[in-house]
Amino acid sequence: MVKRKFSLGLDFGTNSVRALIVDISNGEEIATHVRNYTRGKDGIFLDKKDPNVARQSPGDYIDGLEYACLSALHKAKKVKGFSKENIIGIGVDTTGSTPIPVDKEGISLAFNNKFKNNLNAHAWLWKDHSSHEEAEEITALARELHPEYLAKCGGTYSSEWFFSKILHCLRVDSEVFKNAYSWVELADFIPGVLTGNTNPLEIKRGVCAAGHKAMYNNEWGGLPAEDFLTKFDPKLAELRKRLYKKAYTSDIKAGGLSREYAKKLGLKQGIAVAVGAFDAHMGAVGAGVKPGTLVKIIGTSTCDMMVVPDKKRFSNIPGLCGIVDGSILPGYFGLEAGQSAVGDIFNWFVNLIGDNKKIVHVHKHLTEKAKDLKPGESGLMALDWNNGNRTILVDAKLTGLLLGQTLHTRPEEVYKALIEATAFGARVIIERFEEYGVHVKDIINCGGIAEKNAILMQIYADITGRPMKVSRSSQTCALGASMFGAVAGEGFARVEDAQKAMSGIKSIRYEPHKKAHEIYNQLYRLYLELHDTFGSDRQGNLKHIMKELLKIKNKVRKE
Amino acid sequence: MVKRKFSLGLDFGTNSVRALIVDISNGEEIATHVRNYTRGKDGIFLDKKDPNVARQSPGDYIDGLEYACLSALHKAKKVKGFSKENIIGIGVDTTGSTPIPVDKEGISLAFNNKFKNNLNAHAWLWKDHSSHEEAEEITALARELHPEYLAKCGGTYSSEWFFSKILHCLRVDSEVFKNAYSWVELADFIPGVLTGNTNPLEIKRGVCAAGHKAMYNNEWGGLPAEDFLTKFDPKLAELRKRLYKKAYTSDIKAGGLSREYAKKLGLKQGIAVAVGAFDAHMGAVGAGVKPGTLVKIIGTSTCDMMVVPDKKRFSNIPGLCGIVDGSILPGYFGLEAGQSAVGDIFNWFVNLIGDNKKIVHVHKHLTEKAKDLKPGESGLMALDWNNGNRTILVDAKLTGLLLGQTLHTRPEEVYKALIEATAFGARVIIERFEEYGVHVKDIINCGGIAEKNAILMQIYADITGRPMKVSRSSQTCALGASMFGAVAGEGFARVEDAQKAMSGIKSIRYEPHKKAHEIYNQLYRLYLELHDTFGSDRQGNLKHIMKELLKIKNKVRKE
Repeated sequence: MVKRKFSLGLDFGTNSVRALIVDISNGEEIATHVRNYTRGKDGIFLDKKDPNVARQSPGDYIDGLEYACLSALHKAKKVKGFSKENIIGIGVDTTGSTPIPVDKEGISLAFNNKFKNNLNAHAWLWKDHSSHEEAEEITALARELHPEYLAKCGGTYSSEWFFSKILHCLRVDSEVFKNAYSWVELADFIPGVLTGNTNPLEIKRGVCAAGHKAMYNNEWGGLPAEDFLTKFDPKLAELRKRLYKKAYTSDIKAGGLSREYAKKLGLKQGIAVAVGAFDAHMGAVGAGVKPGTLVKIIGTSTCDMMVVPDKKRFSNIPGLCGIVDGSILPGYFGLEAGQSAVGDIFNWFVNLIGDNKKIVHVHKHLTEKAKDLKPGESGLMALDWNNGNRTILVDAKLTGLLLGQTLHTRPEEVYKALIEATAFGARVIIERFEEYGVHVKDIINCGGIAEKNAILMQIYADITGRPMKVSRSSQTCALGASMFGAVAGEGFARVEDAQKAMSGIKSIRYEPHKKAHEIYNQLYRLYLELHDTFGSDRQGNLKHIMKELLKIKNKVRKE
Repeated sequence: MVKRKFSLGLDFGTNSVRALIVDISNGEEIATHVRNYTRGKDGIFLDKKDPNVARQSPGDYIDGLEYACLSALHKAKKVKGFSKENIIGIGVDTTGSTPIPVDKEGISLAFNNKFKNNLNAHAWLWKDHSSHEEAEEITALARELHPEYLAKCGGTYSSEWFFSKILHCLRVDSEVFKNAYSWVELADFIPGVLTGNTNPLEIKRGVCAAGHKAMYNNEWGGLPAEDFLTKFDPKLAELRKRLYKKAYTSDIKAGGLSREYAKKLGLKQGIAVAVGAFDAHMGAVGAGVKPGTLVKIIGTSTCDMMVVPDKKRFSNIPGLCGIVDGSILPGYFGLEAGQSAVGDIFNWFVNLIGDNKKIVHVHKHLTEKAKDLKPGESGLMALDWNNGNRTILVDAKLTGLLLGQTLHTRPEEVYKALIEATAFGARVIIERFEEYGVHVKDIINCGGIAEKNAILMQIYADITGRPMKVSRSSQTCALGASMFGAVAGEGFARVEDAQKAMSGIKSIRYEPHKKAHEIYNQLYRLYLELHDTFGSDRQGNLKHIMKELLKIKNKVRKE
């Protein structure tokens, strides 16, 4: 009997870290463990004075990593044919852009006694928006001097990203900035920790974080030009030298597992640790992304990802969050789109109306009631912008909208309208892909909502007019990470081979209903008018919107 | 010592009837009683199949009238100086347009065994909207043939009104229509009952109902022309002959109290019963309406009323619900505007989020929390159209809108945004008056919300930039009715004299805060853009709306 071989995937999410052990021959997930971060509120340090602040303790990453791995390994022990010896590689995905200021040795400044209570010395979590002014400034100057920088990231540089955050730190906390020898993305930090090579000048940085969030591109020789950075502050240009020159895809080995971590985890020293990447991108790989297949990860927000082989043709699609060579699958352009809030919008509404009731129950209750509503029956229409719009408007300064409410509008109607709004938003993204020649042949959904909410998935099928498939794995990010671990550990020659062996979809598949789709086509037209009038430059009158919604409502109710 | 003289005011509301006994020398309200209607849901018959239907049993009016009067009279007995003998007149106000199909003797068809279970034979409550198609038809034809008919009622004939309802009955229930010798407004029906003169050809019909809801105007010889009605159905034109030729102001005596009712109530036979009118109009009189004084009755919806002496100049103000000679104060043009929903919007939201909690508590809780929010702080903006827009758009086919919500938006912020939306709507009405030369020197508010909700009144002051006064009486409609009873009973020569003696305002007065007003001016500009783009013909782009709201929000939060 052939010895089974395994890979370890590590997935650093917003509130927790997951370790997953996978049989590389068939994708069987033999053991997993999730460890919640313990510091701050749900692992996040907030600032009462500034709702934009969201920081994390690198200590949580390091403690959580060890705890989750040991627990998963402990569970795996019971599985027949498993042996720690047979783990051939480790892959790592994380949130991002989540940059961490580090000293010359790559140690987080938060571990320095001097800075331990200073949030600016901690990890700047992806959803930290305190640097929105810097983001605007970078966008404005890039638009003027280097529009090519923006063309790869949707035309707008975000407050969530690497240089916005660092520039903000420079301006509000010169002490932290001065003491930060370099800044390292969490996705690069963890492989550094595991391989024992934390030297910021030597860590193998991932192209996914670099290309999506740090304006890194081979077209212009890597990171943005020194003279560009100088315009914001010469200190930023100096920092550039202490960042990196080259970034790598995640099929590359970042290094071997250090003696220290081999001992801690009981694994073989020297096994491959792959270059890190962002969670969604590895999630897309785990779900089986390939040319023509859109992978949607639907959670609090969404990431919508595709890959294209023909690099030149697709290198500029306006409104996409990222177009980066090798960011998803090595050898392909990774195209990343997304919605800034999906599950978060439903959670917001449930909190709004649910008060102190159990949120899960309210979700379930509303979903059940929404099930009986026909398309168009509520007369409501919403825009899914409670957290801004990531694709295709790339505008954080947009907010939610609900219209059509009467004195009889019920909570489940609003809830359903919010689900529909996110589905309309999803359709806008699909149409943008297709408009630029990226044909969407197939859609695979993953993430908690895709798995649990059949009603939502049906609405997505009805609104987009396309079948919705669901990934077999419920932990595609960690699964994707394990695939990269397997490739870096030489279990496969190419990531596509790992995908063939290790990924799959569920037997359930949501087919669009013709009649629902027709009504939703009418509603979608109205959605687009609102979308373009509030989010873009469309000039027009909207007097017909409420009236058409009432007309559809009355018609549907009579049927 | 001079004998005290009293008047009895009867106020027929949507769910109950109120009897009020007032000392005519000083307006002292010596006894009152409210009797809820007992049939249907809160006194209203609904139709599960058609949410537009709202009917009432005339039996509820008659039973309630007797019960409320006897109870109030019983309470008054304890008051020093009161004697039933000294009641000199009775005034009546009611909801409307609430037409009742009656036989040749003026008996409601609902009392006929044949029709007792037929809702079409009952009173068609003002808020019945089942005749919206007929309303559109009447509007369209009047616009073509008799635009002058519409000029007096806001440019659109409503489904809430007399001829829409009768035409609808004709079309859906020919049996009821055929058996209805005539149709009588509730405001005319009650004086008929009290005087014992129910003959539909002889009842003195009030000009308030006639002018506002039945297109009656002396300019064109009373009711709309026969050939106009023929175009809808010759039967409608025939009915015209069995309606009325002349309508009267409420200072006129409809007749003397009948022997039957004198006996039932223990009052003197023959005392004056004044011609009836609508609740809001008599409410305006009760609150002290006079040239330059806007009276706002704020309840589930609002009525905003003014009077103008210079009849010609103000006989056409677009968007007002009614411009009728003598409808409020005899000798003046009554100008009626209003908002289709105010308290109803707050109730809707509380029901939406409050589930099965006590509504009153949720209102109180939200109001308390909203108090601490600064103008602009929530970043929200709403349109107050959950029940359509009565003034100045006169469009029932408009619905609510809320925008600016983020993932952090809290219930009290939405609640306050809804209050603000109604205040913006109120400001639009004031500006429409002034735009047409009707100067608003003074605003007196009445109704439950005006009395109980100091926070709302302050917001109204801040948004309009005008002081808000509150009527002394908490039952201005019944008080106004008692004034007309007093005038018809010859206690005063003119209604203005009755007002001088019997009405007054509270010592509390809400002054606008300068800073709040300035911020609200910025918000009001945005409100108007939404108002005009969704409700009118404005062409434009709205991309700046959410951004400006965020800007104001951020600025206000930093202060």
